[in-house]
Amino acid sequence: MNVYGLIEKNHPSEIHWHGIESFIFATETPYQKIEIVESPFYGRCLVLDGRIQSSERDEFIYHEALVHPALILHPSPQKVLILGGGEGATLREVLKYKQVDKVVMVDIDEKVVKISQEFLPQWHKGSFEDKRLNLVFRDARDYLEKTDAKFDVVISDLSEPMKGSPAVKLFTYEFYNIIKDHLNSDGIFVMQAGTSHHLKIHFHSTMHSTLKKVFDKVFSYQAYVPVYDFIWSFIFCSDKIDPKNVLEEEINKRLEERDIKDLRFYDGETHKMMFSLPKHIRKALEEEKNIAYDSNPLYAVEE
Amino acid sequence: MNVYGLIEKNHPSEIHWHGIESFIFATETPYQKIEIVESPFYGRCLVLDGRIQSSERDEFIYHEALVHPALILHPSPQKVLILGGGEGATLREVLKYKQVDKVVMVDIDEKVVKISQEFLPQWHKGSFEDKRLNLVFRDARDYLEKTDAKFDVVISDLSEPMKGSPAVKLFTYEFYNIIKDHLNSDGIFVMQAGTSHHLKIHFHSTMHSTLKKVFDKVFSYQAYVPVYDFIWSFIFCSDKIDPKNVLEEEINKRLEERDIKDLRFYDGETHKMMFSLPKHIRKALEEEKNIAYDSNPLYAVEE
Amino acid sequence: MNVYGLIEKNHPSEIHWHGIESFIFATETPYQKIEIVESPFYGRCLVLDGRIQSSERDEFIYHEALVHPALILHPSPQKVLILGGGEGATLREVLKYKQVDKVVMVDIDEKVVKISQEFLPQWHKGSFEDKRLNLVFRDARDYLEKTDAKFDVVISDLSEPMKGSPAVKLFTYEFYNIIKDHLNSDGIFVMQAGTSHHLKIHFHSTMHSTLKKVFDKVFSYQAYVPVYDFIWSFIFCSDKIDPKNVLEEEINKRLEERDIKDLRFYDGETHKMMFSLPKHIRKALEEEKNIAYDSNPLYAVEE
Amino acid sequence: MNVYGLIEKNHPSEIHWHGIESFIFATETPYQKIEIVESPFYGRCLVLDGRIQSSERDEFIYHEALVHPALILHPSPQKVLILGGGEGATLREVLKYKQVDKVVMVDIDEKVVKISQEFLPQWHKGSFEDKRLNLVFRDARDYLEKTDAKFDVVISDLSEPMKGSPAVKLFTYEFYNIIKDHLNSDGIFVMQAGTSHHLKIHFHSTMHSTLKKVFDKVFSYQAYVPVYDFIWSFIFCSDKIDPKNVLEEEINKRLEERDIKDLRFYDGETHKMMFSLPKHIRKALEEEKNIAYDSNPLYAVEE
Repeated sequence: MNVYGLIEKNHPSEIHWHGIESFIFATETPYQKIEIVESPFYGRCLVLDGRIQSSERDEFIYHEALVHPALILHPSPQKVLILGGGEGATLREVLKYKQVDKVVMVDIDEKVVKISQEFLPQWHKGSFEDKRLNLVFRDARDYLEKTDAKFDVVISDLSEPMKGSPAVKLFTYEFYNIIKDHLNSDGIFVMQAGTSHHLKIHFHSTMHSTLKKVFDKVFSYQAYVPVYDFIWSFIFCSDKIDPKNVLEEEINKRLEERDIKDLRFYDGETHKMMFSLPKHIRKALEEEKNIAYDSNPLYAVEE
Repeated sequence: MNVYGLIEKNHPSEIHWHGIESFIFATETPYQKIEIVESPFYGRCLVLDGRIQSSERDEFIYHEALVHPALILHPSPQKVLILGGGEGATLREVLKYKQVDKVVMVDIDEKVVKISQEFLPQWHKGSFEDKRLNLVFRDARDYLEKTDAKFDVVISDLSEPMKGSPAVKLFTYEFYNIIKDHLNSDGIFVMQAGTSHHLKIHFHSTMHSTLKKVFDKVFSYQAYVPVYDFIWSFIFCSDKIDPKNVLEEEINKRLEERDIKDLRFYDGETHKMMFSLPKHIRKALEEEKNIAYDSNPLYAVEE
Repeated sequence: MNVYGLIEKNHPSEIHWHGIESFIFATETPYQKIEIVESPFYGRCLVLDGRIQSSERDEFIYHEALVHPALILHPSPQKVLILGGGEGATLREVLKYKQVDKVVMVDIDEKVVKISQEFLPQWHKGSFEDKRLNLVFRDARDYLEKTDAKFDVVISDLSEPMKGSPAVKLFTYEFYNIIKDHLNSDGIFVMQAGTSHHLKIHFHSTMHSTLKKVFDKVFSYQAYVPVYDFIWSFIFCSDKIDPKNVLEEEINKRLEERDIKDLRFYDGETHKMMFSLPKHIRKALEEEKNIAYDSNPLYAVEE
Repeated sequence: MNVYGLIEKNHPSEIHWHGIESFIFATETPYQKIEIVESPFYGRCLVLDGRIQSSERDEFIYHEALVHPALILHPSPQKVLILGGGEGATLREVLKYKQVDKVVMVDIDEKVVKISQEFLPQWHKGSFEDKRLNLVFRDARDYLEKTDAKFDVVISDLSEPMKGSPAVKLFTYEFYNIIKDHLNSDGIFVMQAGTSHHLKIHFHSTMHSTLKKVFDKVFSYQAYVPVYDFIWSFIFCSDKIDPKNVLEEEINKRLEERDIKDLRFYDGETHKMMFSLPKHIRKALEEEKNIAYDSNPLYAVEE
């Protein structure tokens, strides 16, 4: 049993204590508290505002799940926009595609990128040096409202907003319409969308119902990322593409064609697993009526 | 935050505290400590030797995942053997099949059944009264070694053995051969097989490699049961049936034919999800060389 | 490490986890939650509203500290009133004095006495059977407002009130005046008065300053009762007696004269220790200006 | 509730979680792990090998209790030896005495002094700059075995040894004889001596019985230092002086004569309190038969 630890309160009656081997770094920016700690079980971890964002030993699951379905299913992904994703691992996965000739990454907090560059080399693996990258430190909504740029794939790697956080307006119907306006005709929007634990699904299901008002084709999918305690969900949106009806073999063929070789988590069978949802989760999604608007936003529950 | 709680040590540095609303019942038998507690988040929980076995609000996931793939894929399941499963919920799922005309349930601990009958009606739902049931309180290996009975489906609902526990010899190559000897020609053996969390997969992968020496067709599958903290795994074994190559529609058709209507978790899409494994888990299974023998048994790690 | 435990939140950043061997009993009355648990370190414990009230292995410290200074220093204690004290251990200590010919014990909660009689024999040791006892189940203030009885010693064994609890009006200037009206001329009032931990002393120091407005001689004293985590305090009040200027030898002589033989904690040297306060505690008491009135009552801080 | 915390395991079933506001510093030396953390309740804390050594908001209690009884009762303390005490606060209290013209402080770990100088200014308050100080980084036993120096007061501010720690031989009959050989004729030896919690008193009582074989007059005394969870004890040894029979007024007079003005904890009344022990503690000390020898040393129990 370690002396030091980090407590995650997942519910008033569910508390997880993660022992900590050492504290690597801590700072506070105008936007958040940033800490880097070393866990005996999960290795190095990035902690924002007291919540573990990703760990050395399982971040590959989260980042491959977030990026590859969209990048593989888009017929020709050239322009990619990443919202958030300061660790650089979402960027790392996107840059594996040689078709991608421009990546804009918009993170409000320059410091989280600086700290990741120094302390999380296993995450970014030098991606911040790639010439295709345009790194913008700005509020994502402000950026999109003022740019004419259009993208093939937009990836939201933003953590769920707490009450009062500037991220609140990045999880609304209005914002998703702005994103859609910046997508090319075959464009795909994909987001991390909270847990799909059936007793904590409200955030996820509200995002799902909100996006269904914006896009013609909206698919929830999930992956088990151990450090989050709970199963994790994502949403895949477009007007044309149906990721559920793609054959396993087609995914594997495209991975080969696009020369994506070193994945640990994602391939055709994993794709099939992620987009197949258990019955009770499908039911919860169908029954959700809540929509997040600028005037009625959604917060992650602070336990 | 509750005053009382239950601590699960999942790893020396990973401790989960479950708040407890009330303590319903506690006793100790020659085989184990049995407790029934009420959790604010998960409802009533059965706790054996300090580990939560199942909770009111998510046991449907575990029990449907354990039972239905085997019962649906067997062409005509009439005789079923359940090892363990004292709560009565595995039995409840089996009895939904009208083709089943005989169920033998062998549990070493009569008291766990008595207590479940009294305190866990949501689990068994009266199944212990079914006339098709033959309830045997005996060591499962001893029972099988002395009976000539043959079964269409054998379901192992036994918790992973701790060092010194009598269950150790129910998780070995020798025992699985005994099971095979009691299967009819189309027979299926299915077992709960520990977590498939990639950093804790050794128990599961050893069971998988052990069973591959006994059965021609061995398939690992998984489901996310929130109260266990970790994703959970099962193994499906037979000499003929390939559960991965069954179409979603075929599963749904059979559920209808067999008149199985009130499932919350399992159906064709769920089946597809469960039997599709992520790449890193498939790799871990392929690489496992360990085999559990009577002379070299496997224990669940006591943290 | 035990599986089950009880959490005491002593401050938002100071949490004590007490492992629990077994749960003996739990109930809820109109006044409080009552639980009896078995701790590996402290033995049997009485828990009211989630706070440990006393433990088998150190209750002798608390109860001897509460009772004996008053009973020894009173010239002739015949009539004694106990407020609260449902476990029966305060009563047990009072009854050791053969001079005492009448004890009235007023506890609002009949059930806590019933439960103590059944589950805490080590506390009461049969005291509830003593013919000198008059047990009254009633609100203490209501009882005192309506009785003409006078007492030599009044002992308040009430836990500090939480907001909204009926005990709030048993910790005010007005109530202490009522108590004084029911004391004979040599009368002594003694109360348990919360922790005297210097960072948590506000409750204690306010009681001290409130009582100084009622009695001529008011003395804070303290004892270390391990299960409370914090050092514990009491207040001794009268119009005549100065417990600080009594010689150690005088205490020992009186204990012998009054035939009090089997004490484990209290004697002349212990008395000297308890009434000698460290400098910073004396300073905190002197500086306290707050007074608890019916119109401005004091609550124990709920962390 | 803080996200980060420090766990102190006081017993297998008694665990205290201290929330931590921030981590100031951490390092590891050949002798120990050193951490400086900020607690919301206790302020800055020094942590050695995962145990809190002293906190900003109550270190005055510990250090005044350790130093002043000896320095006040010695008729003329000129030469003082401090063993351990790297924070500099024991030194700070000793240097308040103008009669003291030489202080030797021997700490095995140079780094703990360097870190304290930088991070714990509230502890040392510049004492390391005092010209009377001779700071020696060496094993205390090795130092004493090789020096001819004699002292008026020797103060042991060493933490209780764990199995295998070099401090083990600083808590034995043989070492105390070496100390005695280095005391002038009126000399006093005083040590911190673990908790005197009656259920954890074995370490303290063994030190007490060991010292009684070395010195004519040996007195256990105690003080409540909140951050330690348990009441804390010290032992005062000499061949001539009886600290229990000194009048409160005499202590206060000497404090004035020696011009010791700014104490927060210690004075005559505090002295009386500390040297008066409760009956059950005196009994435990009398009954202890264990003696710590080099060949049969004593360890602090590692829970």
